[in-house]
Amino acid sequence: MNMITETIAVMALVGPLAVGAADTFEWQALPEKAPEPPDNPTTTEKVELGRLLYFDPRFSATGTVSCNSCHNLMLGGDDNRAVSMGVHGKTGGRSAPTVWNAAFASSQFWDGRATSLEEQARGSVVNPVEMGMSELEQAMDRVRAIPGYKPYFVRAFGSDNPMTVDNAAKAVAAFERTMITPDSPYDRFVKGDKDALDEQQQRGMTVFAETGCTGCHSGPAFSGPIMPSGTLYLMKFPTFPTDESAEQYDLLTDQGRFAVTSKEADKHLYKVPTLRNVALTAPYFHNGSARTLDDALRMMAKLQLERDLDKGQVDDMVAFLGALTGEFPQQTMPRLPATPGWTLINSED
Amino acid sequence: MNMITETIAVMALVGPLAVGAADTFEWQALPEKAPEPPDNPTTTEKVELGRLLYFDPRFSATGTVSCNSCHNLMLGGDDNRAVSMGVHGKTGGRSAPTVWNAAFASSQFWDGRATSLEEQARGSVVNPVEMGMSELEQAMDRVRAIPGYKPYFVRAFGSDNPMTVDNAAKAVAAFERTMITPDSPYDRFVKGDKDALDEQQQRGMTVFAETGCTGCHSGPAFSGPIMPSGTLYLMKFPTFPTDESAEQYDLLTDQGRFAVTSKEADKHLYKVPTLRNVALTAPYFHNGSARTLDDALRMMAKLQLERDLDKGQVDDMVAFLGALTGEFPQQTMPRLPATPGWTLINSED
Repeated sequence: MNMITETIAVMALVGPLAVGAADTFEWQALPEKAPEPPDNPTTTEKVELGRLLYFDPRFSATGTVSCNSCHNLMLGGDDNRAVSMGVHGKTGGRSAPTVWNAAFASSQFWDGRATSLEEQARGSVVNPVEMGMSELEQAMDRVRAIPGYKPYFVRAFGSDNPMTVDNAAKAVAAFERTMITPDSPYDRFVKGDKDALDEQQQRGMTVFAETGCTGCHSGPAFSGPIMPSGTLYLMKFPTFPTDESAEQYDLLTDQGRFAVTSKEADKHLYKVPTLRNVALTAPYFHNGSARTLDDALRMMAKLQLERDLDKGQVDDMVAFLGALTGEFPQQTMPRLPATPGWTLINSED
Repeated sequence: MNMITETIAVMALVGPLAVGAADTFEWQALPEKAPEPPDNPTTTEKVELGRLLYFDPRFSATGTVSCNSCHNLMLGGDDNRAVSMGVHGKTGGRSAPTVWNAAFASSQFWDGRATSLEEQARGSVVNPVEMGMSELEQAMDRVRAIPGYKPYFVRAFGSDNPMTVDNAAKAVAAFERTMITPDSPYDRFVKGDKDALDEQQQRGMTVFAETGCTGCHSGPAFSGPIMPSGTLYLMKFPTFPTDESAEQYDLLTDQGRFAVTSKEADKHLYKVPTLRNVALTAPYFHNGSARTLDDALRMMAKLQLERDLDKGQVDDMVAFLGALTGEFPQQTMPRLPATPGWTLINSED
C-alpha cells in the first residue's frame, strides 16, 4: 500500500452537473506507480527480464502462446475474443482480462483465485487450455536451456541459483506492474483540467455515479478500492438475473468463485474488472457474451442495479468510459535470447 | 536490381586457409538496402503501416494469428517449430522460412510459388492452416472497419481509395524490406576486418566452400544470386536420396514445386533458403525434420553432394554459420488502432 492516490471530490469539478451520488463519490486518478509486494520490489533489471519472458512463446507446449498472445500489449491488453485461444486452438470458458493496470487489483483471475500477479503468471503456464505445460518446472527447464537468459536472471536476482520458477514469476509480475496507463482524459479532469472531458463525457460521469456503477467500480482503476494484495473484492453477477441473461448471455452456467471453493455463498461471485481502457477490450463479461460496450452497459445496469437505461444515458456513459483510455508507455520490442543451432519445441507438441 | 553488392574474393582475406573452391568463390556482404520492385518503392509511411499490419492478429479468422506469429521478429524471424501452427492449432507440412532478409530472395515460399513479398503476404492470409480467412476482401473489410488505420493508408498511398488489398500487401512487403540484418561477423570479415572471424570460423568458411555448399548457397544472403523479382532459383532436394532421408527425415513425401506445376521436372524442387541467421532458425529443412544445425549440415552434405563430413568439419561449419547472425534493427513496439467499444472477432470463429 506504499502509494499515493490523488483523490478529488467530483463536486468541485463538475459543478452543476454533479448531483445525487456523483457529488459524494471519490473520483481517483490513476497513481503513477502500482502497489508492490514487500517481497518483490520493482527494479529495472526485473522489468527487463520480465518483458522477455512475457513475450516469449517458447514456454508454452506448442511454442506458439506467450503471455502476450492473450494479453496483447499492442492492443488493449487482451485479445478481443469472447474466450481466449491457447495451445492447439483450445478455448476455455472465460474472457482474458486486460493486463493493463492489473497491478491495481488485489486479486487476479475472474474468480480471484490468484492473490497476486506472481501467482497469476504461474497459473497460465500450466493451464491446459492456455500455455499447456505439464508443470512449472518443465517450463523453467526451457528457460534454463536458453543460454542468453542466465545473465538477465543474475542481474535481477543475484548469482545464487537465480533461475527458479519463483524468480521468473516475480520478473513477469514486476514487468506487469509497469504496464499502467495514466493521463487519460478522465485523470486530467479529476486533477483539475476542466476541458479534459467534453460535455457528453461529463454527463456520462454523472450518470455513471447516479446509476450506481460506482458502488462496485470504485478506486483508481474502477475495480474497487485499493486493498492489500490477496484481499478479495468480489461481487455477485448477475445480482438480478433475467431470462435474457440466462439464455442470450449464458450468465448462469459459470458459477464463478463457487468452482474454486464449493461454498454456496460463492456462487456467481466474480472479481470486479477494471474499467480503465474498457473501450479497447470488447467483448465484455466473464464469458465475453456482450459484444459491445453499449450492450454491456445496458445489461449491467439491468442485472446489477435493476435500472433500465435510455439510449441517451448509454451514449453518455460510453463517452465517459472512452475517457478512461490512458496513455500507453512506448516500449522497445525485445530480442529474445536464442538456442543456437537447435530448438526447444518438440515437433510432436 | 538497384543495389550495390560488395564482393570480395576470399583469397585475399583468408590467405593460406583458402584453397580449392574457396579461393574462387565470391563472398558477398549483405547490402544495406534490399532490392525494391519499381511499383513499390519503400517509404517511411509504408513501412510504418506495414509494421502495424504485420503485428496485428485481427486479420486472421480467430484473431490470434498475425504475420509475426510464425515469422517472429523477436526471434530468428520464424517460430522454431518443425511446421507452423495457424488458426485453431492447424498445421501444414512445411516449416516457416525466416522473414529476416527474405527481401533478398527473388521468389517466396519453399516452392517459389510467390514471385514477391507482396504476393507472399496475400497467400498466408487466406491459407486455411495459416491465418484462415476465407478471402482477402474479408480480411480487408476488417482493416477498413478499424478507424485508426485510415490515416496510415492515406499517408502511405494518398487519399484516393487507399484501403485496398494491394496497398496492404505493398505496405507489409515494404516493412519486410527493412527487416534485414547487416554487420554480422561474416560481413565485417569480408569487408576487411580479419579479426571478425576466429580461426575455427575461418576454417569452417573454407570447408563450406570446398564441400560445395556455395554451389547453391551463394549471393549476399546465401540463398542464391540476386536476381530480378519473380525469377525462380530452385534446386532438387534430396539430390541423392538415401533410405535414411526417406524414412527418418521423410523427405520424399513432399514433392516440392511439383505440387504447384504438376510437371515431372519440378519434382522435389525447392527454393534455396537463406543461411543468414541460420543458427536461430532450427529446426531445419522444408519439413523441419532436422532438429539441429549439426544434423542439417551432415545430411545436406550427404544428400546434395554425396559427401561424408567428419565431426571436425561439421563443428567448423557450425561455427562459420554462427557468424552469419547479423545485427537486428531495434524496433518500437507498435500500438495497434482500436475498434472502440466492439470487437472484430466473432466468438464462433
